[in-house]
Amino acid sequence: MVKVRLATPVLQENNEVARENRERFRKHGIFVLNLMSSPGSGKTSTLERTIGHLAGRLRMGVIEGDIYTTKDAERIEAHGVPVVQINTAGSCHLDARMIRPALEDFDLDALDLLIVENVGNLVCPAEFDLGEDARAAVLSVTEGNDKPMKYPLVFRQSEAVLINKVDLLPYTDCDISQLEKDLKLINPELQLFRVSARLDEGFGPWIEWLQKKVQEKKRGEPQAG
Amino acid sequence: MVKVRLATPVLQENNEVARENRERFRKHGIFVLNLMSSPGSGKTSTLERTIGHLAGRLRMGVIEGDIYTTKDAERIEAHGVPVVQINTAGSCHLDARMIRPALEDFDLDALDLLIVENVGNLVCPAEFDLGEDARAAVLSVTEGNDKPMKYPLVFRQSEAVLINKVDLLPYTDCDISQLEKDLKLINPELQLFRVSARLDEGFGPWIEWLQKKVQEKKRGEPQAG
Repeated sequence: MVKVRLATPVLQENNEVARENRERFRKHGIFVLNLMSSPGSGKTSTLERTIGHLAGRLRMGVIEGDIYTTKDAERIEAHGVPVVQINTAGSCHLDARMIRPALEDFDLDALDLLIVENVGNLVCPAEFDLGEDARAAVLSVTEGNDKPMKYPLVFRQSEAVLINKVDLLPYTDCDISQLEKDLKLINPELQLFRVSARLDEGFGPWIEWLQKKVQEKKRGEPQAG
Repeated sequence: MVKVRLATPVLQENNEVARENRERFRKHGIFVLNLMSSPGSGKTSTLERTIGHLAGRLRMGVIEGDIYTTKDAERIEAHGVPVVQINTAGSCHLDARMIRPALEDFDLDALDLLIVENVGNLVCPAEFDLGEDARAAVLSVTEGNDKPMKYPLVFRQSEAVLINKVDLLPYTDCDISQLEKDLKLINPELQLFRVSARLDEGFGPWIEWLQKKVQEKKRGEPQAG
């Protein structure tokens, strides 16, 4: 089997820029979350609900990663938060060098939380550090029980997983308890949140977790865990 | 914006091996389909139903592309068709050089149809020719209406799209007519098939289309359209 691998220099250069981005976020006291998922799991919808719940509580900004369109950025903009669109023009993930120029478009002193919605892809985005403080993944119950075991890297690197579309559970063969067990097997530290973005249900514990992470960052506490 | 692009030599070398694979399939009169989709859209389930419907009508083989596990190959093997697993060990797509050694494990003269289930990814697999005769995509209604416009390449290159999980339509906000219009806008030649792999519904026209393609290949007719 022959593998196509990214050349080491590409990842090294990315990691250097990621360090610069991370230092910049630290100076401004912004907590940055890299949100990843498969296409269609509901990243943008969960983000819209998150914005709604955090309105008036945290000052939030969004970077939208998309291959070609500005559809997601338009949806976010309608909620009145500052949003910058990055079109990767074919590339299947964001990297740290794409994030750097996008930061020029924000007033970083006016933000507590920056969420980066990555390109819809369960594989490649996980290989690129953007300079974020934490990663989270969205996984919907309609995608099937086998996804954690088939795409472990993204879940191993995440601190939280939003299990979305739980309103559809009665109509699928998904065993959500088994799904959660598998996720914990891959990463015992994972925080799991069952939500329905469509019905705006279950977001309380997720919002509390986000607020706690933002407060820790403000106080300069380590972000792990 | 800085893009990470695959170096041209990688794609050139891939295309050369793809040509060799294609010539080999031609000699043996095998119709080869490259099946692509997002993770969790139901590629393996639609493939299982397809095997069931074609049993006794066509001699079929399967190549399973997966990053780490053999879960999908085990599901296919249970249906009694020859299956070869390719683990890409981190790579987010199959390429022609991975297909070549896998062909050694088949009796190619004993096959009419070879279906290659690509890695679950709506972006990268579309860039790699495997030597196949045609491509098809699976898209589930739970993934949302915006997927064709956000990930156009895979749909532009496919001849057929299986729109899966139509049994969940009443519980989603998906507008399937609009979804089909968008797919046709991207690729007016697309054959669209509404199916439910879970309930084994709607597979008749898809099976007819596959049988027609296999017969055309046997007769040495051009495969386009």
